[in-house]
Amino acid sequence: MPDRNERVDQDDGIGGEKVWTAALVIIGDEILSGRTQDANLAYLARWLNIQGIRLKEARVVADDEAAIGAAVTACLAAHDYVFTTGGIGPTHDDITVDAIAAALGRKVVHHPDAVDILTKYYGDRITEARLRMARVPEGADLIPNPETGAPGIRLDRLFIMAGVPKITQGMLRGLDGKLAGGRPVVSRAVGAWTQESRVADLLARIQKEHDGVQVGSYPFWREGKGGANFVLRSVDDTRLAAAVDALRAALEADGITAQEGEI
Amino acid sequence: MPDRNERVDQDDGIGGEKVWTAALVIIGDEILSGRTQDANLAYLARWLNIQGIRLKEARVVADDEAAIGAAVTACLAAHDYVFTTGGIGPTHDDITVDAIAAALGRKVVHHPDAVDILTKYYGDRITEARLRMARVPEGADLIPNPETGAPGIRLDRLFIMAGVPKITQGMLRGLDGKLAGGRPVVSRAVGAWTQESRVADLLARIQKEHDGVQVGSYPFWREGKGGANFVLRSVDDTRLAAAVDALRAALEADGITAQEGEI
Repeated sequence: MPDRNERVDQDDGIGGEKVWTAALVIIGDEILSGRTQDANLAYLARWLNIQGIRLKEARVVADDEAAIGAAVTACLAAHDYVFTTGGIGPTHDDITVDAIAAALGRKVVHHPDAVDILTKYYGDRITEARLRMARVPEGADLIPNPETGAPGIRLDRLFIMAGVPKITQGMLRGLDGKLAGGRPVVSRAVGAWTQESRVADLLARIQKEHDGVQVGSYPFWREGKGGANFVLRSVDDTRLAAAVDALRAALEADGITAQEGEI
Repeated sequence: MPDRNERVDQDDGIGGEKVWTAALVIIGDEILSGRTQDANLAYLARWLNIQGIRLKEARVVADDEAAIGAAVTACLAAHDYVFTTGGIGPTHDDITVDAIAAALGRKVVHHPDAVDILTKYYGDRITEARLRMARVPEGADLIPNPETGAPGIRLDRLFIMAGVPKITQGMLRGLDGKLAGGRPVVSRAVGAWTQESRVADLLARIQKEHDGVQVGSYPFWREGKGGANFVLRSVDDTRLAAAVDALRAALEADGITAQEGEI
């Protein structure tokens, strides 16, 4: 498994402060066929931000050992933390553990605590297929699953989670406050009934004049007219407030009514 | 731009038939922050399947030139077609065209037809910011946008589309039937009120005995009980029907009531 130090550092433009980053690898043919809409990315992104970690990249890969292994390896080399969702159930198409173990050169073993958990959960209905869910790459720890028993898997800075959102969310609750992170990003929105193309120059100027603040522009069409929400993000409240004030003043000077918050 | 021949061929286990594959690169901080739920992946996946093309991979990247360029280049090397969504609007955070042009070693130019379209659309409200939406990597063609004027961009087998789903869907309609593809995947589902772990061996056997058919298992919990949908996919109707019949018979032999179609 690549050493943490191999990753490239990034900063927020604020005094070289370390930014902790993460990637998500979403595993499953059902996502790539359009059958299932992923719901883990957005939840994980917001959860990570509360921990002071930035989701910087996500990949969706098929139920294919080589594809899973390549994605996990590439993400481990580039980020502090890597999360995977999907493919840890009991059936033949659940190959996440085998794929990751192969990519990292580890054996697959039955984790004794997972065997206990599953044996208690299923009682005399325990089978070899159900014990597949106790298989982990050698050396891994478990992530408790308060919903359905079968645990997630932690291998240092790699977190192997379920595909079912309710289960993944339960696993994340157990990790609350346990990962090293930096300052969370705070965001504030300014909404205006104007086409973003009318204020593009103004936005670029605000972005340029406010180091450590990112300005995003998200247009929409509703009730037959165009508007845009401008979302400003920073780890620094004071810088953020100054940028929001400057943006609102600039919009109003241009004859555009703007409101705090999204329209 | 890498040559099409560089891609690795894949097959469906049916006589080495060529499978046409695609990747999607989703561009935007708003997806990675959890602010916006992507809706393009599932739509594109289903649209591609109708064209006989398989979506094999997706990546979500930040509004960052290097990240966009690296993802597009890697996907072009691995797949027949690459689609991008997001970052082609008029504001400073819309950097998709510049990132792709830089990654492919092309200049950015104003496409004369796009300049015409935008000038007609905006009339005397045309500005330099709005004309940013006419910028393309040199040598590119336009993809008509029936919704809001500003066109998408086609560069051989790379398709640069909008982030707003309604606009992307309009662009895809214009590409209907125009891309080379193979046979579409047909899928049929079998739903059963059983835990998938109870039938894991049975599913593995059906998968093994039916070349050219993929069996996926998707568990759920509803009304306080567990069930699973088994989705079978193939490009071949006959093989698919045989596998569905075999699965239903095996489930019923095991005392499990199964229905055609998802529960």
